[in-house]
Amino acid sequence: MDIIQPGKLLSKIDSPADLRSLKKEQLPQVVRELRQYIIDVVSVYGGHFGASLGVSELTVALHYVFNTPDDQLVWDVGHQAYGHKILTGRRDNFSSNRVYKGLSGFPKRSESEFDTFGVGHSSTSISAALGMATGSEIQGEKDRQHIAVIGDGAMTGGMAFEAMNNAGVSNSNLLIVLNDNCMSIDPNVGALKEYLTDITTSHTYNKIRDEVWKLLGKISKFGPNAQEIASKIENGLKSAILKQSNLFESLNLRYFGPIDGHDIHHLVEVMNDLKDIPGPKILHCLTVKGKGYPQAEKDQTKWHAPGKFDKITGEIHKVVHETPQPPKYQEVFGHTLVELADQNEKIVGITPAMPSGSSMNIMMEAHPKRSFDVGIAEQHAVTFSAGLATRGLVPFCNIYSSFMQRAYDQVVHDVAIQKLPVIFCLDRAGVAGADGPTHHGAYDLAYMRCLPNMVVAAPMNEKELRNMMLTASEWKDGPFTIRYPRGQGVMPEWKTPMEKLEVGTGRKLRDGKDLAILSIGHIGNYASRSCKELDAKGISAAHYDMRFVKPLDQELLHEVFRNHKLVITVEDGSIMGGFGSAVLEFMAANDYSSKVRLLGIPDKVVEHGSQDQLYSECGYDNESITKEALELVRAYTKISSVK
Amino acid sequence: MDIIQPGKLLSKIDSPADLRSLKKEQLPQVVRELRQYIIDVVSVYGGHFGASLGVSELTVALHYVFNTPDDQLVWDVGHQAYGHKILTGRRDNFSSNRVYKGLSGFPKRSESEFDTFGVGHSSTSISAALGMATGSEIQGEKDRQHIAVIGDGAMTGGMAFEAMNNAGVSNSNLLIVLNDNCMSIDPNVGALKEYLTDITTSHTYNKIRDEVWKLLGKISKFGPNAQEIASKIENGLKSAILKQSNLFESLNLRYFGPIDGHDIHHLVEVMNDLKDIPGPKILHCLTVKGKGYPQAEKDQTKWHAPGKFDKITGEIHKVVHETPQPPKYQEVFGHTLVELADQNEKIVGITPAMPSGSSMNIMMEAHPKRSFDVGIAEQHAVTFSAGLATRGLVPFCNIYSSFMQRAYDQVVHDVAIQKLPVIFCLDRAGVAGADGPTHHGAYDLAYMRCLPNMVVAAPMNEKELRNMMLTASEWKDGPFTIRYPRGQGVMPEWKTPMEKLEVGTGRKLRDGKDLAILSIGHIGNYASRSCKELDAKGISAAHYDMRFVKPLDQELLHEVFRNHKLVITVEDGSIMGGFGSAVLEFMAANDYSSKVRLLGIPDKVVEHGSQDQLYSECGYDNESITKEALELVRAYTKISSVK
Repeated sequence: MDIIQPGKLLSKIDSPADLRSLKKEQLPQVVRELRQYIIDVVSVYGGHFGASLGVSELTVALHYVFNTPDDQLVWDVGHQAYGHKILTGRRDNFSSNRVYKGLSGFPKRSESEFDTFGVGHSSTSISAALGMATGSEIQGEKDRQHIAVIGDGAMTGGMAFEAMNNAGVSNSNLLIVLNDNCMSIDPNVGALKEYLTDITTSHTYNKIRDEVWKLLGKISKFGPNAQEIASKIENGLKSAILKQSNLFESLNLRYFGPIDGHDIHHLVEVMNDLKDIPGPKILHCLTVKGKGYPQAEKDQTKWHAPGKFDKITGEIHKVVHETPQPPKYQEVFGHTLVELADQNEKIVGITPAMPSGSSMNIMMEAHPKRSFDVGIAEQHAVTFSAGLATRGLVPFCNIYSSFMQRAYDQVVHDVAIQKLPVIFCLDRAGVAGADGPTHHGAYDLAYMRCLPNMVVAAPMNEKELRNMMLTASEWKDGPFTIRYPRGQGVMPEWKTPMEKLEVGTGRKLRDGKDLAILSIGHIGNYASRSCKELDAKGISAAHYDMRFVKPLDQELLHEVFRNHKLVITVEDGSIMGGFGSAVLEFMAANDYSSKVRLLGIPDKVVEHGSQDQLYSECGYDNESITKEALELVRAYTKISSVK
Repeated sequence: MDIIQPGKLLSKIDSPADLRSLKKEQLPQVVRELRQYIIDVVSVYGGHFGASLGVSELTVALHYVFNTPDDQLVWDVGHQAYGHKILTGRRDNFSSNRVYKGLSGFPKRSESEFDTFGVGHSSTSISAALGMATGSEIQGEKDRQHIAVIGDGAMTGGMAFEAMNNAGVSNSNLLIVLNDNCMSIDPNVGALKEYLTDITTSHTYNKIRDEVWKLLGKISKFGPNAQEIASKIENGLKSAILKQSNLFESLNLRYFGPIDGHDIHHLVEVMNDLKDIPGPKILHCLTVKGKGYPQAEKDQTKWHAPGKFDKITGEIHKVVHETPQPPKYQEVFGHTLVELADQNEKIVGITPAMPSGSSMNIMMEAHPKRSFDVGIAEQHAVTFSAGLATRGLVPFCNIYSSFMQRAYDQVVHDVAIQKLPVIFCLDRAGVAGADGPTHHGAYDLAYMRCLPNMVVAAPMNEKELRNMMLTASEWKDGPFTIRYPRGQGVMPEWKTPMEKLEVGTGRKLRDGKDLAILSIGHIGNYASRSCKELDAKGISAAHYDMRFVKPLDQELLHEVFRNHKLVITVEDGSIMGGFGSAVLEFMAANDYSSKVRLLGIPDKVVEHGSQDQLYSECGYDNESITKEALELVRAYTKISSVK
């Protein structure tokens, strides 16, 4: 693979100070080179794409105008920050982006002083920047600037509104840059988006102007001057009206724009002006996601994170397999939901802005009136689902495991306490891979199983997922959580007939006399492999796929602990408070005293990497399970054949 | 105590159908009687007060105009729903409000079909009502109405915004009644509040009118007609401008108001009109919290939930004690924070709209520039604190334990993963008492201890709380959670000199040979009592106050498990995943096999009652601990003296 060469100017920018030493006239060239470098690197190494292309001018302008890192720049979500990373000393290392031990795909405090705040989830930037600005104010640092760059999608998240409500009554040096491209990963939805389009195309102003002219028709008796007067009034009122009619001005933020986010000279000029205006303010910039790469501009969802591609032809490289491959759990979810919804007209689907990521888009196509993309709004998604459930609907609310943290109170307060039958499908549960710590769904087993009335299940394969979805759709006794990982399952022939499960029952996959392995979810496939490895070493391990973390299959557990003095639990989730911990609680309540080892995500921040790399690092891939089993058996039994 | 007699009309209203059979002219009398009944009952039995008085007209109007319970009425937060309960068949039972086994202080689905959605936390009503409306729409129920009644305080919570963003693009039969009284429990803060005041007093319109007149000065050359023209234009534009300049209209909700929320006839008239207007809409009503009881109108925070009082004189009954009483943990928090802040200028305080409840108001008075009430906005509060921490400040972010569920993702994503030293003081941890299940802080130990970098501590008394606060203020190694219950501690002489603790160390309170009791937090005082009860029965129990759920004091635990075959853990929190569960994980990792019993909140929804009643019901008051200890000792030892 060739080394990717940055352009002439970009190759000399090792920090924003270098950028700031350039002449204004050179900036368009920097932007072109930056965009090209992103295209060159992402086409070869993969990663997020459209978002960073869309903010190339913004990125250059921000670092040119503001004195980073002294001025504090916070990127919302952060998958648009590739240009930021390249300009802030990470250019030559950028091909390690999202690779195990390499650069993070998101801004990260430990990686650079230019990354003032770690991001990944949406809508946090205004709160963080306002906190920084307030901190500076308290400490008398009056000149320090604080900038939050937030997309129109992220703006729909409630915490952005909470932050603006607070910012509007502060005097902090806060600049919110609204990067308005009408897109999240999927096209944006909701009233705010329509409003932003409205002010962009000046419908508001136009409407009021129409009123003026209509009125003037009625007052034409005032003579020929009337039109001229009206014209004067119109121009004079334009700014006043537009200003007053502005949602952000309503919240006491000074609003500027909308301006073209791809005009680097104008951006620099406006930002320079804004630096001198104290207090909270918002600059509305219009950008195009994927700007500068025609295919990406055209199909923005596909090119959000396209994988590797041929930068000349725009052909996205697909790995071709000779044998049929297992589907992704996401696809199984999407197709199975439609199958169920075809049979049961009460079933509805809810996603907070993740139609393509979760495969809810399959349901949206099949049953558009029974599918809801509610915007980046996990809290609302959950309580909206609860409301639907009170009317007898059967809501499948699909939220990534780590994003569900955003709606925890709604799960507790609006669903679990009320025992409402809402089905939560937690996607990306367990380590999420290249997206890293912000996206790992590490805590869901712990934070869900402690809630009363909650069922918590995890399928070991595609068939189990389908069975769990059928079971959940007929469960009337409260909420039902099904968690599954990002990516492929294990069954190329996955479209099995669905069978209803008895809630709270696991299954024994194999007998064994030396120890028992209890697994939950997809990671059970690694436990199965481990059992075979142990066979080869003369160790006979029983394997149980527990299926339900809550309620636990007590009968099965009695069998396990009556027959086994050595037990290993395996989960793709935090050890603390998780599945293994639930097994220990069962043991304590029943006075069992087997030796137990809990394998799962340890008590640390797990960084990014492939899922297999992380399973291994965390010690619950098949090799780790085998190793742990061997150690346990060696320590407590006298099997001579153990090597 | 006399039986409280409702007024003549009210005494015959056993359901809203009875109300609807009355003539419009009788409604003011119903309102008067309803208000009087609330005053009569609350003065004798206690409870929330000002909020329900403020919505007496609204309550009567809603049930008069809408066909409840077929039409779906959702009260946000719900402490304003006393009138609603009285009108919906719970009048005669109303004195049991907030009493153990009695009526809930909040709407509750299991209590009445008129309570369409359980509430307690803020800002959920629009999401829930929109879900209901969408459910009705899917099922072809076109006439059914869905009403969310939400205060201007609750409107600052982000999820209300998420819901409006979604509602604005729906066609659902949704009416949002904005009950604007400028108050939460404390006075409202933030830009939205100022905006609402602004539209109420028509500043917006006035500003634009001023612009017209200013302009007309410049164009006076157009002759004497100019003023007349302008006047016409002004009137004609008024409605257009006001409408366009409206924040809610920006979100595509049809906005009506503001109207006087105490004019019952006008309310009925407007609501009747609104019934016929399809689609999402908002009615802005101005009300006065405490309306009709002058003292409550005057000091609205004090009269939010005044306790019992003399309804004639307005004197709030205080229990007079002969001996000095221990302070509330809340007071200790407030005063101690000021003591620490006096010494350390980096310390700041953050509360989401709970200054008086948390005692942050003490800090706000002492250090106004370093204290922040950010509105009902837990998510923002946490990330704002994280932003402050990045700038070297030491934020004490005080949030009720159950409300912290609202900001769980922010704790994980913005604080724990980034290892930022934010101090979380979780008030109302454990069972909260009369507020019931929505307010119990049952899950915090489980949902906090699974997070990396997180310290989780709980003080057994006032001195320990002070020591933990000092320790936390000097801890640089990540977030630090201190959780403590609602109400009184145990030390009348609480203002002890502060001592820094070593993080992760517990303390042995007494030796014992028959079993060990490990407790965490205030409930340890009940464990202490139990030890004495056990002494009397000839059982010798060791008692350890573990202080930290995370990191656990491993040294102390080794001592415990080396010396004790019988162990009881006691916590005022969920057994599943909590403190006891952490102890079991330690045991498993170290191959201990003592018999262990976990006492704490069991896996069910715990209803309301006094804290002592609930400790007893849940099985971890002193008597329950004693009973459990006796059973354990009887089962596993041969102590002849055990009776």
